[in-house]
Amino acid sequence: MDETRITPRKEDFASWYQDVVLLGDMAEPAEIVKGCMVIRPNGYAVWELLQREFDNRFKATGHENIYLPLLIPQSFLEREAEHVEGFSPELAVVTIAGGKKLEEPYVIRPTSEAIVGYFFSKWIQSYRDLPLLFNQWANVIRWELRTRMFLRTTEFLWQEGHTAHTTHNEAIEEALRILDLYAEVAEEVMAVPVIKGVKTQAEKFAGALTSYSIEAMMQNGLALQAGTTHDLGQNFGKAFNVQFQTNEGKLDYVWQTSWGVSTRLIGGLIMTHSDDKGLVLPPKLAPKKAVIVPIYRKEEERVRVLNVAERLAKALGVTVDDREGLTPGAKFFHWERRGIPVVFEIGPREVSGDTVVLKRRDTGLKETIPHDAAPVKLDESLRAMQKELYIKAKQRLADNTIMADSLEEVESILKDVTAEKGGGRFVMAHLKDDPRNDALIKELKATIRNIPLVDNYDGPGKCILTGEQVNQRVVISKAY
Amino acid sequence: MDETRITPRKEDFASWYQDVVLLGDMAEPAEIVKGCMVIRPNGYAVWELLQREFDNRFKATGHENIYLPLLIPQSFLEREAEHVEGFSPELAVVTIAGGKKLEEPYVIRPTSEAIVGYFFSKWIQSYRDLPLLFNQWANVIRWELRTRMFLRTTEFLWQEGHTAHTTHNEAIEEALRILDLYAEVAEEVMAVPVIKGVKTQAEKFAGALTSYSIEAMMQNGLALQAGTTHDLGQNFGKAFNVQFQTNEGKLDYVWQTSWGVSTRLIGGLIMTHSDDKGLVLPPKLAPKKAVIVPIYRKEEERVRVLNVAERLAKALGVTVDDREGLTPGAKFFHWERRGIPVVFEIGPREVSGDTVVLKRRDTGLKETIPHDAAPVKLDESLRAMQKELYIKAKQRLADNTIMADSLEEVESILKDVTAEKGGGRFVMAHLKDDPRNDALIKELKATIRNIPLVDNYDGPGKCILTGEQVNQRVVISKAY
Repeated sequence: MDETRITPRKEDFASWYQDVVLLGDMAEPAEIVKGCMVIRPNGYAVWELLQREFDNRFKATGHENIYLPLLIPQSFLEREAEHVEGFSPELAVVTIAGGKKLEEPYVIRPTSEAIVGYFFSKWIQSYRDLPLLFNQWANVIRWELRTRMFLRTTEFLWQEGHTAHTTHNEAIEEALRILDLYAEVAEEVMAVPVIKGVKTQAEKFAGALTSYSIEAMMQNGLALQAGTTHDLGQNFGKAFNVQFQTNEGKLDYVWQTSWGVSTRLIGGLIMTHSDDKGLVLPPKLAPKKAVIVPIYRKEEERVRVLNVAERLAKALGVTVDDREGLTPGAKFFHWERRGIPVVFEIGPREVSGDTVVLKRRDTGLKETIPHDAAPVKLDESLRAMQKELYIKAKQRLADNTIMADSLEEVESILKDVTAEKGGGRFVMAHLKDDPRNDALIKELKATIRNIPLVDNYDGPGKCILTGEQVNQRVVISKAY
Repeated sequence: MDETRITPRKEDFASWYQDVVLLGDMAEPAEIVKGCMVIRPNGYAVWELLQREFDNRFKATGHENIYLPLLIPQSFLEREAEHVEGFSPELAVVTIAGGKKLEEPYVIRPTSEAIVGYFFSKWIQSYRDLPLLFNQWANVIRWELRTRMFLRTTEFLWQEGHTAHTTHNEAIEEALRILDLYAEVAEEVMAVPVIKGVKTQAEKFAGALTSYSIEAMMQNGLALQAGTTHDLGQNFGKAFNVQFQTNEGKLDYVWQTSWGVSTRLIGGLIMTHSDDKGLVLPPKLAPKKAVIVPIYRKEEERVRVLNVAERLAKALGVTVDDREGLTPGAKFFHWERRGIPVVFEIGPREVSGDTVVLKRRDTGLKETIPHDAAPVKLDESLRAMQKELYIKAKQRLADNTIMADSLEEVESILKDVTAEKGGGRFVMAHLKDDPRNDALIKELKATIRNIPLVDNYDGPGKCILTGEQVNQRVVISKAY
């Protein structure tokens, strides 16, 4: 079965990833639309679970969902100078509509700050109108040259939060609150440990004062920016003239934030937990938690096994894979590749003994348990798997994060990557937030990922490039 | 407060609708993007509830969600002749991307049959791959000349189902199954009675063999097509070469269906139930079911009333509107316009008597009830309101549906509309499904809405235009 072989990670990490995505029924490339993908049923079901986790938390913190137009008049994007500079190379432009050439073209939103600016100026007059706490679930397009399913696609699905506040402090608090919320979902739901931090000035969002990110480490040691929140200051407020009357009767520009996570998270999820057998999903994000695979040879066995399997399925709230014309082996294979956390096997021997075999996807361990114990054992296994996947990823992050005290050390650590890893490591070094330093690190094909909000290392030190005193080490890594 | 006045329905139905949408925090026009709207928090929350209702039913009937690209190569649309003819006047075309003129332009999907055709040809080889039962939640763009919030906008949100089957019968069954599902949500959730029927050949979807619709009557007597399902036959299968091996080893083209409902439903919901005071929502689609408005004058009353209100809120699972600086009257007004089904009023008198006043949005009736009875009474009121809104709409439909036995009668009924209604009526007449007849009806500024699946009238008769014998009466009406 060559066409369904999964390339081992050691052999080629990029091919492994592609194989896992395809054979896990997560997505497939949409070659006919440049850099786009089709999100397949298993992938979309994971996205729905992830959306629910974020959306519940957004609502619990007072945010409301709205929907803004897909198209933005091109001139709107040009109002904020850094914003247009950052996004204009990536725009898809509508020049014809309804059979006519448009007088002013529209761009398909690459992000919605520009159109939000326009509406905020309509909606906000007084401090009484603030804060405005909005979110939208939407598709965006950024014309990327190099794409990879989920991680970087021309079109992607995401949520974008847009908020307006009376003070800068309130906006910063919001950006940090959402960063915490993102980290919570990443760690507690996705089982992906992340480093919260500040992006350097060179790496911040086009138009922001300060950007914050959560950075995760993939199995090959590369970094993935998994979510960002932005303190936009008054930049968009001034560009779109969003003024409000303060409670002292003066006029001021609003302080804004924006923040987003996208379908890219699914790529990070896959690259964190999956193995050479295919997809591994943390139970909280598994569309199906478990399935029962019946094993029988003769017709008389079939009826007996299926009856017991159905009874067990009811007690467990799961389904029986009773597809005809497929061997049990083919069924195990099918579910393994799709990342189902637990498979129950039941054959004539188990039926006779009132037992069932429980097999965990991550460890591959099998355990024979009595029927009565199955619901509790299933629950325990799912919880253990959720926890252990996180611990394993956390350990990997710790094992592959290394301190460096000179540019040479940084360079040698980034180079010293075994073939097995095929990727990189996180290097912690003292470095000043200065675009010239970002440029030097880029020459090593790495970037400064962020400046951690919590310094788990040795505090202040001398910048390895300029010798200036800086407060703490930063994270350097190759990244997706 | 002129700026927040709602135009009475009698005065101007179209202005009334616009006022209700705006003041109900449902949507607002996005003037800067032709024919688009911003869906505001209350409107989006209703859409989320509606999505959940449909989505649960799609999943329960075996459909899986996927996501396909927003952009479609222009040439793809041209493969099915009727399809391109129907949609080409409405397309938005991307001709520039990533700073370069594209060799082949992309169109923004007006619907996804064309791209589905391409992927089905990749995914389907054998009868074993069938049926494929997919759905996607997405935005689409159709460049409309005359737009109206929710009812017809350039961009709208919708779901589009796309399925492939081995036989024509199976595809027809699917189209009818989904039509039933749509009708169920319309009637049982939206409290909007609908007529299920077949569209005439002139009015069917561009590329379908047969289209089915559910048609609803708005308060002004106009029809609204609330959902459609299509038997696509093998039209797209042939256009995109979607062939499969039958279980006899032959090759055949797949039989497809597609079906959709959109944010237009929210327009229908508003035009069915709302009144001159603003939005009325059936409880099942109300984002908040009830709120408690505390009434007090002195500070000492305030504490006492708020304490009891909070206790009651907990028991009821609702919130207290404790906003400062707003009179109780302003709060009632606020909730009334937003269509909250029940408002509880509680003041010093109620606190003393351990009572609370329950006010229903639809009837405006108030009832003083003991605290203990509040949870049960709330539940009863919501259920009664859900049911009565449906009965009222059903009665309106019956009262405004009239039989006609000649073109003159049809014309006079369509004209004989009181100023109060400002709109139309449903006329039931015998009419042959022939595009020439559709054209004649169009001269009356009306259309044949559908040929009901269930004939509640007098069976066969002579076509009022051609004299030919036809099986049953059809629905004629002005429509949105």
